[in-house]
Amino acid sequence: MTITIRHIIDRLRGDVAPIESTVDTLLGPGSPDTAVAGVAVAFMPSLEVIERAAALGANLLIAHEGVYYSHRTPAQLPEDDPVFAHKQALIRQSGVTVYRHHDYCHRASPDPITLGLVRALDWERHLERMLPAAAVLAVPAMRADAAAAHVRARLGLPGVRFAGDPGMTCRRIGVFAGYRGGSELAVSLLREHRLDLIVAGEGPEWETPEYMRDAVHSGAAKSLLLIGHAESEEPGMQLEAERLRQACPGLPVHWLAGRPALRYM
Amino acid sequence: MTITIRHIIDRLRGDVAPIESTVDTLLGPGSPDTAVAGVAVAFMPSLEVIERAAALGANLLIAHEGVYYSHRTPAQLPEDDPVFAHKQALIRQSGVTVYRHHDYCHRASPDPITLGLVRALDWERHLERMLPAAAVLAVPAMRADAAAAHVRARLGLPGVRFAGDPGMTCRRIGVFAGYRGGSELAVSLLREHRLDLIVAGEGPEWETPEYMRDAVHSGAAKSLLLIGHAESEEPGMQLEAERLRQACPGLPVHWLAGRPALRYM
Repeated sequence: MTITIRHIIDRLRGDVAPIESTVDTLLGPGSPDTAVAGVAVAFMPSLEVIERAAALGANLLIAHEGVYYSHRTPAQLPEDDPVFAHKQALIRQSGVTVYRHHDYCHRASPDPITLGLVRALDWERHLERMLPAAAVLAVPAMRADAAAAHVRARLGLPGVRFAGDPGMTCRRIGVFAGYRGGSELAVSLLREHRLDLIVAGEGPEWETPEYMRDAVHSGAAKSLLLIGHAESEEPGMQLEAERLRQACPGLPVHWLAGRPALRYM
Repeated sequence: MTITIRHIIDRLRGDVAPIESTVDTLLGPGSPDTAVAGVAVAFMPSLEVIERAAALGANLLIAHEGVYYSHRTPAQLPEDDPVFAHKQALIRQSGVTVYRHHDYCHRASPDPITLGLVRALDWERHLERMLPAAAVLAVPAMRADAAAAHVRARLGLPGVRFAGDPGMTCRRIGVFAGYRGGSELAVSLLREHRLDLIVAGEGPEWETPEYMRDAVHSGAAKSLLLIGHAESEEPGMQLEAERLRQACPGLPVHWLAGRPALRYM
Protein backbone atom coordinates (compact mmCIF):
# COMPACT_ATOMS: atom_id res chain seq x y z
CA MET A 1 0.00 0.00 0.00
CA THR A 2 1.27 3.45 -0.89
CA ILE A 3 1.57 5.66 2.15
CA THR A 4 0.68 9.28 1.42
CA ILE A 5 1.44 12.42 3.35
CA ARG A 6 -2.24 12.44 4.29
CA HIS A 7 -1.88 9.04 5.95
CA ILE A 8 1.04 10.27 8.01
CA ILE A 9 -0.75 13.47 9.03
CA ASP A 10 -3.88 11.54 10.01
CA ARG A 11 -1.79 9.22 12.16
CA LEU A 12 0.10 12.08 13.81
CA ARG A 13 -3.11 13.98 14.58
CA GLY A 14 -4.82 10.88 15.98
CA ASP A 15 -8.19 11.65 17.53
CA VAL A 16 -7.46 15.28 18.38
CA ALA A 17 -10.45 17.42 17.38
CA PRO A 18 -9.89 19.82 14.46
CA ILE A 19 -8.01 22.98 15.43
CA GLU A 20 -8.88 26.21 13.65
CA SER A 21 -6.15 28.40 12.21
CA THR A 22 -3.52 25.86 13.17
CA VAL A 23 0.12 26.32 12.28
CA ASP A 24 0.26 22.59 11.46
CA THR A 25 0.45 22.96 7.70
CA LEU A 26 2.41 21.63 4.75
CA LEU A 27 5.17 23.67 3.16
CA GLY A 28 7.06 22.54 0.10
CA PRO A 29 6.54 20.74 -3.18
CA GLY A 30 4.33 17.92 -1.85
CA SER A 31 0.59 17.70 -1.31
CA PRO A 32 -1.45 15.41 0.96
CA ASP A 33 -1.66 12.94 -1.94
CA THR A 34 2.09 12.70 -2.41
CA ALA A 35 3.48 9.20 -1.81
CA VAL A 36 5.95 9.13 1.07
CA ALA A 37 9.31 7.58 0.21
CA GLY A 38 10.79 8.23 3.60
CA VAL A 39 10.18 10.37 6.66
CA ALA A 40 12.58 12.49 8.70
CA VAL A 41 11.56 13.89 12.08
CA ALA A 42 13.27 16.80 13.81
CA PHE A 43 12.55 19.61 16.22
CA MET A 44 13.71 22.43 13.95
CA PRO A 45 13.56 22.44 10.12
CA SER A 46 16.91 24.18 9.70
CA LEU A 47 18.73 24.27 6.37
CA GLU A 48 21.08 21.58 7.61
CA VAL A 49 18.21 19.35 8.77
CA ILE A 50 16.42 19.67 5.42
CA GLU A 51 19.65 18.74 3.62
CA ARG A 52 20.12 15.73 5.89
CA ALA A 53 16.53 14.63 5.29
CA ALA A 54 17.02 14.86 1.52
CA ALA A 55 20.31 12.96 1.70
CA LEU A 56 18.51 10.15 3.54
CA GLY A 57 15.92 9.93 0.78
CA ALA A 58 13.11 11.36 2.88
CA ASN A 59 10.58 13.49 1.01
CA LEU A 60 8.61 14.36 4.17
CA LEU A 61 10.15 16.22 7.10
CA ILE A 62 8.06 16.41 10.25
CA ALA A 63 9.22 19.34 12.37
CA HIS A 64 7.88 20.95 15.51
CA GLU A 65 8.77 24.56 14.80
CA GLY A 66 8.29 26.73 11.74
CA VAL A 67 10.54 27.03 8.72
CA TYR A 68 10.80 30.82 8.65
CA TYR A 69 11.96 31.83 12.13
CA SER A 70 8.55 32.72 13.53
CA HIS A 71 5.53 30.94 14.95
CA ARG A 72 3.39 31.73 11.93
CA THR A 73 4.73 31.61 8.39
CA PRO A 74 4.69 35.23 7.17
CA ALA A 75 2.04 35.87 4.51
CA GLN A 76 4.76 37.43 2.39
CA LEU A 77 8.39 36.36 2.69
CA PRO A 78 10.97 39.14 2.41
CA GLU A 79 12.24 39.33 -1.17
CA ASP A 80 15.65 40.74 -0.42
CA ASP A 81 16.87 38.31 2.25
CA PRO A 82 19.50 35.78 1.12
CA VAL A 83 18.74 33.40 4.01
CA PHE A 84 15.02 33.22 3.22
CA ALA A 85 15.86 32.90 -0.49
CA HIS A 86 18.33 30.08 0.17
CA LYS A 87 15.77 28.20 2.24
CA GLN A 88 12.98 28.64 -0.31
CA ALA A 89 15.28 27.36 -3.04
CA LEU A 90 16.43 24.39 -0.96
CA ILE A 91 12.87 23.30 -0.19
CA ARG A 92 11.91 23.63 -3.84
CA GLN A 93 14.97 21.77 -5.13
CA SER A 94 15.35 19.11 -2.45
CA GLY A 95 11.87 17.70 -2.93
CA VAL A 96 11.41 17.69 0.86
CA THR A 97 7.98 18.78 2.05
CA VAL A 98 7.87 20.04 5.62
CA TYR A 99 4.88 19.22 7.80
CA ARG A 100 4.64 21.09 11.07
CA HIS A 101 3.61 18.87 13.95
CA HIS A 102 2.91 21.39 16.70
CA ASP A 103 -0.64 22.28 17.70
CA TYR A 104 -2.16 18.83 17.30
CA CYS A 105 0.82 17.34 19.03
CA HIS A 106 0.46 19.58 22.10
CA ARG A 107 -3.32 19.03 22.15
CA ALA A 108 -3.01 15.25 22.49
CA SER A 109 -3.59 13.73 25.90
CA PRO A 110 -1.03 13.18 27.22
CA ASP A 111 1.03 15.71 25.26
CA PRO A 112 3.83 13.56 23.77
CA ILE A 113 6.23 16.49 23.97
CA THR A 114 5.85 16.67 27.75
CA LEU A 115 5.85 12.88 28.07
CA GLY A 116 8.99 12.56 25.97
CA LEU A 117 10.79 15.05 28.19
CA VAL A 118 9.66 13.32 31.39
CA ARG A 119 10.90 10.00 30.01
CA ALA A 120 14.19 11.46 28.83
CA LEU A 121 14.66 12.74 32.38
CA ASP A 122 13.95 9.22 33.69
CA TRP A 123 11.20 10.67 35.85
CA GLU A 124 8.14 8.89 34.47
CA ARG A 125 7.92 6.72 37.60
CA HIS A 126 7.51 9.95 39.63
CA LEU A 127 4.64 11.20 37.48
CA GLU A 128 1.73 12.22 39.69
CA ARG A 129 -0.42 13.94 37.12
CA MET A 130 -0.25 14.94 33.50
CA LEU A 131 -1.84 18.35 32.92
CA PRO A 132 -2.53 19.80 29.45
CA ALA A 133 0.52 22.08 29.71
CA ALA A 134 2.79 20.40 32.25
CA ALA A 135 3.67 17.24 34.14
CA VAL A 136 3.47 17.23 37.93
CA LEU A 137 6.04 14.98 39.58
CA ALA A 138 6.40 13.85 43.20
CA VAL A 139 10.10 13.00 43.56
CA PRO A 140 12.27 11.78 46.41
CA ALA A 141 13.68 14.82 48.22
CA MET A 142 16.55 16.31 46.24
CA ARG A 143 18.41 19.60 46.27
CA ALA A 144 17.60 21.99 43.43
CA ASP A 145 21.21 21.97 42.26
CA ALA A 146 21.16 18.16 42.23
CA ALA A 147 18.02 18.29 40.10
CA ALA A 148 19.85 20.67 37.75
CA ALA A 149 22.80 18.29 37.55
CA HIS A 150 20.42 15.39 36.85
CA VAL A 151 18.72 17.30 34.02
CA ARG A 152 22.05 18.30 32.52
CA ALA A 153 23.37 14.74 32.65
CA ARG A 154 20.21 13.06 31.32
CA LEU A 155 19.83 15.48 28.40
CA GLY A 156 23.55 15.90 27.76
CA LEU A 157 23.42 19.68 28.17
CA PRO A 158 26.51 21.83 28.74
CA GLY A 159 24.49 23.90 31.21
CA VAL A 160 21.11 25.26 32.24
CA ARG A 161 19.89 28.63 33.47
CA PHE A 162 18.78 28.65 37.09
CA ALA A 163 16.80 31.04 39.30
CA GLY A 164 16.03 30.49 42.96
CA ASP A 165 17.93 28.69 45.70
CA PRO A 166 20.31 25.91 44.61
CA GLY A 167 20.32 24.48 48.13
CA MET A 168 16.56 24.17 48.62
CA THR A 169 14.93 20.78 48.88
CA CYS A 170 12.57 19.82 46.05
CA ARG A 171 9.84 17.21 46.40
CA ARG A 172 7.39 18.45 43.80
CA ILE A 173 8.56 19.32 40.31
CA GLY A 174 6.62 20.74 37.37
CA VAL A 175 7.91 19.96 33.88
CA PHE A 176 6.92 22.57 31.28
CA ALA A 177 8.20 21.83 27.77
CA GLY A 178 8.75 24.65 25.27
CA TYR A 179 7.78 28.26 25.80
CA ARG A 180 5.73 27.61 28.91
CA GLY A 181 7.98 29.22 31.48
CA GLY A 182 5.96 32.47 31.64
CA SER A 183 4.46 33.50 34.96
CA GLU A 184 0.80 33.35 33.98
CA LEU A 185 1.03 29.62 33.40
CA ALA A 186 4.02 28.49 35.44
CA VAL A 187 3.42 30.49 38.64
CA SER A 188 -0.31 29.63 38.63
CA LEU A 189 0.43 25.91 38.35
CA LEU A 190 3.23 26.22 40.90
CA ARG A 191 0.67 27.56 43.36
CA GLU A 192 -2.08 25.13 42.46
CA HIS A 193 0.13 22.04 42.59
CA ARG A 194 2.46 23.20 45.38
CA LEU A 195 5.52 22.84 43.17
CA ASP A 196 9.02 23.47 44.53
CA LEU A 197 10.85 23.46 41.22
CA ILE A 198 9.82 24.29 37.67
CA VAL A 199 11.75 22.79 34.77
CA ALA A 200 10.86 24.71 31.61
CA GLY A 201 12.18 25.26 28.11
CA GLU A 202 12.13 29.03 28.02
CA GLY A 203 10.09 32.01 29.20
CA PRO A 204 10.42 35.77 29.65
CA GLU A 205 13.25 36.65 32.02
CA TRP A 206 11.29 39.34 33.89
CA GLU A 207 8.50 36.95 34.87
CA THR A 208 9.08 33.58 36.55
CA PRO A 209 12.80 34.10 37.34
CA GLU A 210 11.84 37.25 39.24
CA TYR A 211 9.09 35.41 41.09
CA MET A 212 11.67 32.83 42.16
CA ARG A 213 14.05 35.55 43.33
CA ASP A 214 11.33 37.11 45.48
CA ALA A 215 10.17 33.70 46.74
CA VAL A 216 13.67 32.96 48.01
CA HIS A 217 13.97 36.42 49.56
CA SER A 218 10.61 36.04 51.33
CA GLY A 219 11.71 32.75 52.89
CA ALA A 220 9.48 30.49 50.78
CA ALA A 221 12.11 29.19 48.39
CA LYS A 222 11.09 28.08 44.91
CA SER A 223 13.35 27.45 41.94
CA LEU A 224 13.32 27.45 38.15
CA LEU A 225 15.46 25.63 35.62
CA LEU A 226 15.39 26.94 32.04
CA ILE A 227 16.86 24.17 29.93
CA GLY A 228 16.31 25.64 26.44
CA HIS A 229 13.33 25.47 24.12
CA ALA A 230 14.75 22.92 21.66
CA GLU A 231 16.36 20.94 24.46
CA SER A 232 12.97 20.61 26.19
CA GLU A 233 10.99 19.54 23.10
CA GLU A 234 13.43 17.35 21.19
CA PRO A 235 12.79 14.23 23.33
CA GLY A 236 9.07 14.48 22.59
CA MET A 237 9.66 14.75 18.86
CA GLN A 238 11.98 11.76 19.09
CA LEU A 239 9.15 9.88 20.82
CA GLU A 240 6.83 10.82 17.95
CA ALA A 241 9.41 9.46 15.47
CA GLU A 242 9.54 6.15 17.36
CA ARG A 243 5.75 5.88 17.40
CA LEU A 244 5.60 6.54 13.67
CA ARG A 245 8.29 3.94 13.01
CA GLN A 246 6.29 1.34 14.92
CA ALA A 247 3.03 2.29 13.25
CA CYS A 248 4.45 2.14 9.72
CA PRO A 249 6.73 -0.89 9.43
CA GLY A 250 8.65 -0.79 6.20
CA LEU A 251 8.55 2.98 5.96
CA PRO A 252 11.96 4.54 6.63
CA VAL A 253 11.58 6.97 9.57
CA HIS A 254 14.73 8.87 10.51
CA TRP A 255 15.12 10.83 13.74
CA LEU A 256 17.38 13.83 13.17
CA ALA A 257 18.78 15.16 16.43
CA GLY A 258 19.49 18.88 16.31
CA ARG A 259 22.45 20.85 17.50
CA PRO A 260 21.88 23.80 19.82
CA ALA A 261 21.57 27.12 18.00
CA LEU A 262 22.65 28.99 21.13
CA ARG A 263 25.82 28.37 23.08
CA TYR A 264 26.97 29.97 26.31
CA MET A 265 30.27 31.78 26.03
CA MET B 1 10.37 73.89 47.07
CA THR B 2 8.74 70.59 47.83
CA ILE B 3 9.32 68.06 45.09
CA THR B 4 6.31 65.82 44.54
CA ILE B 5 6.03 62.50 42.77
CA ARG B 6 4.23 64.40 39.99
CA HIS B 7 7.29 66.62 39.49
CA ILE B 8 9.50 63.57 39.13
CA ILE B 9 7.11 61.84 36.72
CA ASP B 10 6.80 64.99 34.60
CA ARG B 11 10.56 65.25 34.41
CA LEU B 12 10.99 61.57 33.52
CA ARG B 13 8.33 61.75 30.80
CA GLY B 14 9.78 64.93 29.32
CA ASP B 15 8.08 65.96 26.10
CA VAL B 16 6.92 62.48 25.10
CA ALA B 17 3.30 62.65 23.91
CA PRO B 18 0.71 60.98 26.16
CA ILE B 19 0.59 57.19 25.77
CA GLU B 20 -2.75 55.46 26.15
CA SER B 21 -3.08 52.42 28.41
CA THR B 22 0.52 52.76 29.49
CA VAL B 23 2.04 50.47 32.10
CA ASP B 24 3.82 53.52 33.55
CA THR B 25 1.70 53.83 36.67
CA LEU B 26 2.11 54.33 40.41
CA LEU B 27 1.81 51.41 42.80
CA GLY B 28 1.99 51.82 46.54
CA PRO B 29 0.93 54.17 49.32
CA GLY B 30 1.87 57.44 47.60
CA SER B 31 -0.01 59.65 45.14
CA PRO B 32 1.21 62.21 42.61
CA ASP B 33 0.95 64.86 45.36
CA THR B 34 3.19 62.99 47.81
CA ALA B 35 6.36 64.89 48.72
CA VAL B 36 9.48 62.98 47.68
CA ALA B 37 11.99 62.47 50.50
CA GLY B 38 14.37 60.47 48.36
CA VAL B 39 14.40 58.52 45.12
CA ALA B 40 15.78 55.10 44.35
CA VAL B 41 16.16 53.92 40.74
CA ALA B 42 16.48 50.28 39.71
CA PHE B 43 15.74 47.99 36.81
CA MET B 44 13.62 45.49 38.76
CA PRO B 45 11.48 46.31 41.82
CA SER B 46 12.34 43.08 43.63
CA LEU B 47 11.63 42.60 47.34
CA GLU B 48 15.29 43.19 48.09
CA VAL B 49 15.40 46.38 46.02
CA ILE B 50 12.31 47.77 47.75
CA GLU B 51 13.88 47.02 51.14
CA ARG B 52 17.12 48.73 50.10
CA ALA B 53 15.18 51.77 48.88
CA ALA B 54 13.32 52.02 52.18
CA ALA B 55 16.55 51.62 54.18
CA LEU B 56 18.03 54.55 52.22
CA GLY B 57 15.06 56.75 53.15
CA ALA B 58 13.63 56.77 49.62
CA ASN B 59 9.83 56.88 49.40
CA LEU B 60 9.81 56.70 45.58
CA LEU B 61 11.28 53.80 43.65
CA ILE B 62 11.55 54.24 39.90
CA ALA B 63 11.74 50.84 38.23
CA HIS B 64 11.69 49.72 34.62
CA GLU B 65 9.79 46.45 35.00
CA GLY B 66 6.61 45.58 36.85
CA VAL B 67 6.22 44.62 40.48
CA TYR B 68 4.18 41.46 39.97
CA TYR B 69 6.18 39.32 37.51
CA SER B 70 4.31 40.31 34.38
CA HIS B 71 4.22 43.18 31.93
CA ARG B 72 0.81 44.35 33.13
CA THR B 73 -0.18 44.34 36.78
CA PRO B 74 -2.92 41.70 37.08
CA ALA B 75 -6.37 43.20 37.72
CA GLN B 76 -6.70 40.79 40.63
CA LEU B 77 -3.67 39.52 42.52
CA PRO B 78 -3.79 35.87 43.62
CA GLU B 79 -5.03 35.68 47.20
CA ASP B 80 -3.32 32.48 48.18
CA ASP B 81 0.25 33.22 47.09
CA PRO B 82 2.73 33.95 49.90
CA VAL B 83 5.16 35.74 47.57
CA PHE B 84 2.53 38.15 46.24
CA ALA B 85 1.25 38.63 49.82
CA HIS B 86 4.74 39.36 51.11
CA LYS B 87 5.32 41.92 48.39
CA GLN B 88 1.98 43.65 48.92
CA ALA B 89 2.68 43.88 52.64
CA LEU B 90 6.21 45.20 52.12
CA ILE B 91 5.03 47.94 49.76
CA ARG B 92 2.30 48.94 52.20
CA GLN B 93 4.58 48.92 55.24
CA SER B 94 7.76 50.33 53.73
CA GLY B 95 6.12 53.52 52.54
CA VAL B 96 7.87 53.06 49.18
CA THR B 97 5.76 53.93 46.14
CA VAL B 98 6.88 52.31 42.92
CA TYR B 99 6.66 54.26 39.67
CA ARG B 100 7.20 52.30 36.52
CA HIS B 101 9.37 54.10 34.00
CA HIS B 102 8.97 51.97 30.89
CA ASP B 103 6.78 53.10 27.99
CA TYR B 104 7.61 56.82 28.15
CA CYS B 105 11.25 55.96 28.61
CA HIS B 106 11.38 53.81 25.48
CA ARG B 107 9.37 56.38 23.50
CA ALA B 108 11.89 59.17 24.13
CA SER B 109 14.23 60.09 21.29
CA PRO B 110 16.86 58.80 21.68
CA ASP B 111 15.64 55.97 23.93
CA PRO B 112 17.81 56.38 27.04
CA ILE B 113 17.74 52.61 27.62
CA THR B 114 19.44 51.99 24.27
CA LEU B 115 21.76 54.96 24.72
CA GLY B 116 22.76 53.81 28.21
CA LEU B 117 23.65 50.37 26.88
CA VAL B 118 25.66 51.79 23.95
CA ARG B 119 27.57 54.03 26.37
CA ALA B 120 28.16 51.20 28.84
CA LEU B 121 29.63 49.22 25.93
CA ASP B 122 31.91 52.20 25.14
CA TRP B 123 30.52 52.19 21.61
CA GLU B 124 28.89 55.62 21.46
CA ARG B 125 31.67 56.88 19.17
CA HIS B 126 30.67 54.16 16.66
CA LEU B 127 27.00 55.20 16.63
CA GLU B 128 25.81 55.62 13.07
CA ARG B 129 22.11 55.97 13.69
CA MET B 130 19.70 55.74 16.59
CA LEU B 131 16.45 54.05 15.58
CA PRO B 132 13.34 53.94 17.78
CA ALA B 133 14.07 50.32 18.77
CA ALA B 134 17.81 49.89 18.23
CA ALA B 135 21.17 51.56 17.75
CA VAL B 136 23.08 50.97 14.51
CA LEU B 137 26.85 50.98 14.97
CA ALA B 138 29.66 51.00 12.40
CA VAL B 139 32.62 49.52 14.25
CA PRO B 140 36.21 48.72 13.29
CA ALA B 141 36.31 45.15 11.98
CA MET B 142 36.19 42.68 14.87
CA ARG B 143 35.49 38.98 15.22
CA ALA B 144 32.10 38.08 16.68
CA ASP B 145 33.73 36.26 19.59
CA ALA B 146 35.85 39.33 20.30
CA ALA B 147 32.67 41.41 20.34
CA ALA B 148 31.20 38.91 22.81
CA ALA B 149 34.29 39.18 25.01
CA HIS B 150 34.10 42.98 24.85
CA VAL B 151 30.41 42.96 25.91
CA ARG B 152 31.12 40.54 28.77
CA ALA B 153 34.05 42.61 30.01
CA ARG B 154 32.33 46.01 29.74
CA LEU B 155 29.14 44.84 31.47
CA GLY B 156 30.85 42.51 33.93
CA LEU B 157 28.85 39.48 32.79
CA PRO B 158 29.85 35.88 33.58
CA GLY B 159 28.74 34.91 30.07
CA VAL B 160 26.41 35.57 27.16
CA ARG B 161 24.40 33.34 24.84
CA PHE B 162 25.64 33.27 21.27
CA ALA B 163 24.22 32.07 17.95
CA GLY B 164 26.03 32.27 14.62
CA ASP B 165 29.70 32.11 13.73
CA PRO B 166 32.18 33.18 16.43
CA GLY B 167 34.91 33.65 13.82
CA MET B 168 33.00 35.93 11.45
CA THR B 169 34.07 39.54 10.99
CA CYS B 170 31.63 42.18 12.23
CA ARG B 171 31.59 45.73 10.97
CA ARG B 172 27.97 46.67 11.55
CA ILE B 173 26.33 45.94 14.90
CA GLY B 174 22.73 46.48 16.01
CA VAL B 175 22.11 47.01 19.71
CA PHE B 176 18.61 45.98 20.84
CA ALA B 177 17.94 46.51 24.56
CA GLY B 178 15.35 44.41 26.40
CA TYR B 179 12.97 41.98 24.73
CA ARG B 180 13.73 43.10 21.20
CA GLY B 181 15.58 40.03 19.97
CA GLY B 182 12.56 38.56 18.16
CA SER B 183 12.83 37.96 14.43
CA GLU B 184 10.10 40.35 13.29
CA LEU B 185 12.07 43.31 14.60
CA ALA B 186 15.66 42.12 14.73
CA VAL B 187 15.87 40.27 11.41
CA SER B 188 14.03 43.09 9.58
CA LEU B 189 16.46 45.68 10.90
CA LEU B 190 19.41 43.36 10.25
CA ARG B 191 18.35 43.28 6.59
CA GLU B 192 17.54 46.96 6.32
CA HIS B 193 20.75 48.17 7.98
CA ARG B 194 23.05 45.38 6.70
CA LEU B 195 23.99 44.33 10.24
CA ASP B 196 26.52 41.58 10.89
CA LEU B 197 25.89 41.15 14.60
CA ILE B 198 22.87 41.76 16.80
CA VAL B 199 23.36 42.40 20.50
CA ALA B 200 20.02 41.97 22.28
CA GLY B 201 18.65 41.44 25.76
CA GLU B 202 16.42 38.46 25.10
CA GLY B 203 14.08 37.03 22.48
CA PRO B 204 12.37 33.75 21.55
CA GLU B 205 14.90 30.99 20.97
CA TRP B 206 13.17 29.61 17.87
CA GLU B 207 13.32 32.93 16.02
CA THR B 208 16.51 34.98 15.58
CA PRO B 209 18.94 32.28 16.83
CA GLU B 210 17.57 29.94 14.15
CA TYR B 211 17.89 32.63 11.50
CA MET B 212 21.55 33.03 12.50
CA ARG B 213 22.09 29.28 12.31
CA ASP B 214 20.69 29.17 8.77
CA ALA B 215 22.58 32.32 7.76
CA VAL B 216 25.87 30.68 8.73
CA HIS B 217 24.89 27.45 6.96
CA SER B 218 23.98 29.32 3.78
CA GLY B 219 27.38 31.04 3.72
CA ALA B 220 26.14 34.52 4.66
CA ALA B 221 27.23 34.50 8.29
CA LYS B 222 25.38 36.64 10.82
CA SER B 223 25.54 36.41 14.59
CA LEU B 224 23.49 37.13 17.70
CA LEU B 225 24.50 37.85 21.27
CA LEU B 226 21.81 37.52 23.91
CA ILE B 227 23.16 39.29 26.96
CA GLY B 228 20.12 39.09 29.29
CA HIS B 229 17.11 41.38 29.61
CA ALA B 230 18.13 43.06 32.88
CA GLU B 231 21.76 43.18 31.82
CA SER B 232 20.76 45.06 28.65
CA GLU B 233 18.49 47.63 30.32
CA GLU B 234 20.24 48.36 33.62
CA PRO B 235 22.77 50.80 32.12
CA GLY B 236 19.92 52.86 30.67
CA MET B 237 18.12 53.03 34.00
CA GLN B 238 21.39 54.06 35.62
CA LEU B 239 21.63 56.83 33.02
CA GLU B 240 18.11 57.95 33.96
CA ALA B 241 19.17 58.04 37.63
CA GLU B 242 22.16 60.25 36.77
CA ARG B 243 19.98 62.62 34.77
CA LEU B 244 17.50 62.89 37.62
CA ARG B 245 20.31 63.56 40.09
CA GLN B 246 21.58 66.40 37.93
CA ALA B 247 18.11 67.82 37.39
CA CYS B 248 17.19 67.81 41.09
CA PRO B 249 20.18 68.97 43.12
CA GLY B 250 19.55 68.44 46.82
CA LEU B 251 17.24 65.50 46.23
CA PRO B 252 18.82 62.18 47.21
CA VAL B 253 18.79 59.90 44.14
CA HIS B 254 20.17 56.40 44.69
CA TRP B 255 21.01 54.02 41.88
CA LEU B 256 20.41 50.44 43.00
CA ALA B 257 22.26 47.95 40.83
CA GLY B 258 20.51 44.61 40.61
CA ARG B 259 21.87 41.12 40.84
CA PRO B 260 21.08 38.65 38.06
CA ALA B 261 18.01 36.49 38.77
CA LEU B 262 19.29 33.79 36.40
CA ARG B 263 22.66 32.12 36.62
CA TYR B 264 24.19 29.58 34.27
CA MET B 265 25.05 26.30 35.94
